[in-house]
Amino acid sequence: MSGNTLGTLFCVTNFGESHGPAIGCVVDGCPPGLALDAADIQAELDRRRPGTSRHVTQRQEADQVEILSGVYQGVTTGTPIALLIRNTDARSKDYSNIADTFRPGHADFTYTRKYGLRDPRGGGRSSARLTAPTVAAGAIAKKWLAEQHGIRVRGYMSQLGPIPIPFVSWDDVPANAFYAPNAAIVPELEAYMDQLRRDGDSIGARIEVVAENVPVGWGEPVYDRLDADIAHVMLGLNAVKGVSIGAGFDCVTQRGSEHGDEITPDGFVGNNAGGVLGGISTGQPVTVSLAIKPTSSIRVERRSINAEGEPVTVQTLGRHDPCVGIRATPIVESMLALVLIDHALRHRGQCG
Amino acid sequence: MSGNTLGTLFCVTNFGESHGPAIGCVVDGCPPGLALDAADIQAELDRRRPGTSRHVTQRQEADQVEILSGVYQGVTTGTPIALLIRNTDARSKDYSNIADTFRPGHADFTYTRKYGLRDPRGGGRSSARLTAPTVAAGAIAKKWLAEQHGIRVRGYMSQLGPIPIPFVSWDDVPANAFYAPNAAIVPELEAYMDQLRRDGDSIGARIEVVAENVPVGWGEPVYDRLDADIAHVMLGLNAVKGVSIGAGFDCVTQRGSEHGDEITPDGFVGNNAGGVLGGISTGQPVTVSLAIKPTSSIRVERRSINAEGEPVTVQTLGRHDPCVGIRATPIVESMLALVLIDHALRHRGQCG
Amino acid sequence: MSGNTLGTLFCVTNFGESHGPAIGCVVDGCPPGLALDAADIQAELDRRRPGTSRHVTQRQEADQVEILSGVYQGVTTGTPIALLIRNTDARSKDYSNIADTFRPGHADFTYTRKYGLRDPRGGGRSSARLTAPTVAAGAIAKKWLAEQHGIRVRGYMSQLGPIPIPFVSWDDVPANAFYAPNAAIVPELEAYMDQLRRDGDSIGARIEVVAENVPVGWGEPVYDRLDADIAHVMLGLNAVKGVSIGAGFDCVTQRGSEHGDEITPDGFVGNNAGGVLGGISTGQPVTVSLAIKPTSSIRVERRSINAEGEPVTVQTLGRHDPCVGIRATPIVESMLALVLIDHALRHRGQCG
Amino acid sequence: MSGNTLGTLFCVTNFGESHGPAIGCVVDGCPPGLALDAADIQAELDRRRPGTSRHVTQRQEADQVEILSGVYQGVTTGTPIALLIRNTDARSKDYSNIADTFRPGHADFTYTRKYGLRDPRGGGRSSARLTAPTVAAGAIAKKWLAEQHGIRVRGYMSQLGPIPIPFVSWDDVPANAFYAPNAAIVPELEAYMDQLRRDGDSIGARIEVVAENVPVGWGEPVYDRLDADIAHVMLGLNAVKGVSIGAGFDCVTQRGSEHGDEITPDGFVGNNAGGVLGGISTGQPVTVSLAIKPTSSIRVERRSINAEGEPVTVQTLGRHDPCVGIRATPIVESMLALVLIDHALRHRGQCG
Repeated sequence: MSGNTLGTLFCVTNFGESHGPAIGCVVDGCPPGLALDAADIQAELDRRRPGTSRHVTQRQEADQVEILSGVYQGVTTGTPIALLIRNTDARSKDYSNIADTFRPGHADFTYTRKYGLRDPRGGGRSSARLTAPTVAAGAIAKKWLAEQHGIRVRGYMSQLGPIPIPFVSWDDVPANAFYAPNAAIVPELEAYMDQLRRDGDSIGARIEVVAENVPVGWGEPVYDRLDADIAHVMLGLNAVKGVSIGAGFDCVTQRGSEHGDEITPDGFVGNNAGGVLGGISTGQPVTVSLAIKPTSSIRVERRSINAEGEPVTVQTLGRHDPCVGIRATPIVESMLALVLIDHALRHRGQCG
Repeated sequence: MSGNTLGTLFCVTNFGESHGPAIGCVVDGCPPGLALDAADIQAELDRRRPGTSRHVTQRQEADQVEILSGVYQGVTTGTPIALLIRNTDARSKDYSNIADTFRPGHADFTYTRKYGLRDPRGGGRSSARLTAPTVAAGAIAKKWLAEQHGIRVRGYMSQLGPIPIPFVSWDDVPANAFYAPNAAIVPELEAYMDQLRRDGDSIGARIEVVAENVPVGWGEPVYDRLDADIAHVMLGLNAVKGVSIGAGFDCVTQRGSEHGDEITPDGFVGNNAGGVLGGISTGQPVTVSLAIKPTSSIRVERRSINAEGEPVTVQTLGRHDPCVGIRATPIVESMLALVLIDHALRHRGQCG
Repeated sequence: MSGNTLGTLFCVTNFGESHGPAIGCVVDGCPPGLALDAADIQAELDRRRPGTSRHVTQRQEADQVEILSGVYQGVTTGTPIALLIRNTDARSKDYSNIADTFRPGHADFTYTRKYGLRDPRGGGRSSARLTAPTVAAGAIAKKWLAEQHGIRVRGYMSQLGPIPIPFVSWDDVPANAFYAPNAAIVPELEAYMDQLRRDGDSIGARIEVVAENVPVGWGEPVYDRLDADIAHVMLGLNAVKGVSIGAGFDCVTQRGSEHGDEITPDGFVGNNAGGVLGGISTGQPVTVSLAIKPTSSIRVERRSINAEGEPVTVQTLGRHDPCVGIRATPIVESMLALVLIDHALRHRGQCG
Repeated sequence: MSGNTLGTLFCVTNFGESHGPAIGCVVDGCPPGLALDAADIQAELDRRRPGTSRHVTQRQEADQVEILSGVYQGVTTGTPIALLIRNTDARSKDYSNIADTFRPGHADFTYTRKYGLRDPRGGGRSSARLTAPTVAAGAIAKKWLAEQHGIRVRGYMSQLGPIPIPFVSWDDVPANAFYAPNAAIVPELEAYMDQLRRDGDSIGARIEVVAENVPVGWGEPVYDRLDADIAHVMLGLNAVKGVSIGAGFDCVTQRGSEHGDEITPDGFVGNNAGGVLGGISTGQPVTVSLAIKPTSSIRVERRSINAEGEPVTVQTLGRHDPCVGIRATPIVESMLALVLIDHALRHRGQCG
């Protein structure tokens, strides 16, 4: 496929640009018989929506989703589900000054060089806004996984720049703008972000996502392992620079006698595997960790070049997320759900 | 596709089991006109071959590759290139004692539960032996990339368990069994491995791989980004638990003003991006880092269960790599080359 | 992919139901730099639009297409092009009486049995209305093929039920509602159709489509031959029951000395091959012939069963095409164009 | 994928050249637990084997298949099944005289122009010999379909050049070299072929293939309809110039009141649909008809050009089938079986 489609049996084809008429996706392969209406999808979209706190971009987008097909009388029919989100708050003038220059760390440069031209309005296709259709598709996946297998996919921020966020409780996560599992640390996060905004700078973050109740047996080795496909979707997200499963990079210093999770008649002891062995789910929680880079659209002046290759100074003044990691949690949850449902269907296809 | 094929235009389909008659792959989509003979492939296979030092498995496999198709008079014809490697040193009796038990940290358990049965001989399909066909395919990719674009793909070990390996020189890499870019540290690595073998245990490692001279413009956003496809193949490898690009997990604590690589008329200043922005190559070196877990086949006794779910003690006595990271370097180089050639052809297809 | 996507590099994902909110498609992989606006697409949609003569369905649909993405300042950007067509004249009450019965020869039965439910409004997903997005995508393909290679794809009706239509001139084709290349025969066709409507019945047809100026070398044997992919898209169309290339079924009685097109320094003598040898284009015109069945929605009473399996009599009173072949010509042209552009890009990718 | 792979969940990747070391395929996605040994596959290969009567090529190939992977203790494991057939009777000198000329009606010309070079030995990759791996893969599909669903796929010749072969009995089919369902007509067929050989010419044929007991519900509309995928594989075969389903081209002259198969509580009345409605199987037999062209390798002298574009006279003296249709029946059975199993698994994946 030509790059904008995910999946083998549960397929998501993403379209749109940040300031074009609309963004959206087509979900092909959703099993028939799933109760679904726009509110199911809207709930997830609202979780990633911009403008909901002072720590994220102030762009105002209702992100209202319309289901164009594939649902009849509130139930999926097995045919493609097209989802449409109109762009409403597109202020292209904010970006006019950067149409001919390349922001350091931004896809401006590579899009222009790859295609010979680019849509510069709001980052065009490279904008993080294009994660919204993924979240919409993921909402369908999440609902099916929950209803069919009792699977719960949820994530949280484990680090904001220099501040590690010790896990306290899942209950804390929805109660703050950071998806932090630790209410006590929120004031520190807020203070950090307030100073960062004053500095006109941005910061990285680390996100964890966990899927519970995944049955044993999902994943297609050799190449399309469950963890390989998870890595693929995660680095398919804007700003992600690293992904790991289970013990992740800590496994470098582990011995086999420490890393290999022992098994007892009551189940596994530990989960260094992160719920995947040999590319196939173990029945343990699938645990994923992500590194998210700081956004490249900042007020700090930086050296760059323009389309003619001449040196310029770049400063980005539009509305931007100073930490894209803050809104990443619902996105990465969706991504994990999309991989899981695809492998659920593939497994059912081959192994009955 | 059904899980054992990589790529969209340059496709590799992998087959075989560790102790079956043969392993191999079919490479479909190789451009015509490339000079190719078995020696080109053999050279790469010999780099990952077992039995070449005391620090790796003592299984003796010549890993002689036969080209079955797709090459005529020493030149590729554009038709599928089938590569065959016979298994010769398969001692299945070594594994008979574990046919009914599950090694902690091993795919024994998941294969059995997924498929209802498994080939237990030498780990069957889940064996690291199945990386050999990938290396063979990668040799073709490497040759084409070098000839068409002057691309060089090479890797090294940057950490062995607790021992970081500071980079000194590429010249040191081929001169030791560890692919360490630092001759001075080799005695320490050897001593560590000798003790580990005495302990009957295994250890993790970290590998870096770099592709130089990659042109700007390769990669297909949104989903099939160059870095996403790199992540996919890397976690498609046995034992890999994490992958990162450029600054990787260090980006979590970076500010945008530090992370975003500035551009001057002479090129980029720094490479935190790892050669990829917005999923598209920048023209800078593509840099990838991998975490490789310790192998699960160790002499240390561990708790597990058998096929009936009863508690057992497992100790693996066969010939195994105490650190699969040691032989990983040529494999990850091949993987990166396979992603690059596929995106080279995709880019040429769409953008001419 | 999950069934509703065509192509490997130039991919079309189709969505929608006859009486849902909208139909459309996403075109992924269109080369950047193609001048494109909605009028280019609208012109082709208008050719297949219903309600344009008394011989086709009287449903009134403007079929106004909106380009949602992938085009900036009138030029394609290389990113997915989403095309949206709102359904406006959906009279679902016309179909309420058939929601629980299965029309003989219609997909009512199979959809219900496959998915466990179906959208009965206007045939839902199985309606010929879903060929509109294909035509829209095909308009893009046609434009690129014409500009890049001077390719012209055009078709005509060669038989309407019992009436063969001898080819006279391409000029006659756009001048009548039947796409007949023979103005003189049009009164006979009209009289036939008028009687058919009075009978409340429907009829089959045969369509020819030809692509001129296709370069030699497109097609990917063994399986994805150019003619194989043509056959795939053509039988992917509603109501098509047969497809042939070049001499087609006449080759059954031909000798090799007659069938094989001789070659002279001036080119081929004859075109029994239909422009394809060994699955690869020859440089001759690609010629395709299609058999299109009579529509199943007729006023003539027929025996069937209802959802409970009880015998019923079915008579379909809604607005339907009495000969879907009449509007098929622009559709099959689009289909052929979609295959050609996909193979153009694949060839460029592999063979440079 | 890059052209030599069939299927979405049950995937077959074909490799090899007529006179290279070997031909074969990799079958990826076969469900685990199927009893399978080489004899199951050999039986089907023997049905298409050359040299078994005076009416086919006298090339002697044992076509012994070796299973390289994916089967353990006589049962499929769910991992890729690689099948290898060594070429043994390759007389390349027979073809040396045609290395620089293009046979009329042959892929010599198109391969050379597409790839810039070709393997001329025995037609290289374009040889009908490459149908052997397809037959081998089809044998696996047939076995699974029979065991899981009681499906029987079988075919016969319905016309040899000018001689129609009225269907008398399936019992007659295996009793003659032509797969003719009519023992009485065999002497006429033999006399025709004997004269044809004396003439040094070749002839076309028509083949029918039928799958019984296919459940209702297989097929993925819009594009990957069951009949679309059947058409794809059939025109993916050498020498096939046309394919039709059910009434096929006869539907052109049928009225809707005649074509649409009525339904009663006891089932369908008639099968003009050929077992497919709306792209989904109906539960009726799936019936397919194929037009097979005369082979282009004949002794009759013909005009052509050489690689330099100069006029030459071509006469092919090697061992060739004067009617490739004679050996086509087991091949088209395999092709149909491959489509059916793929859609069986896809349906199970999406619809459970």
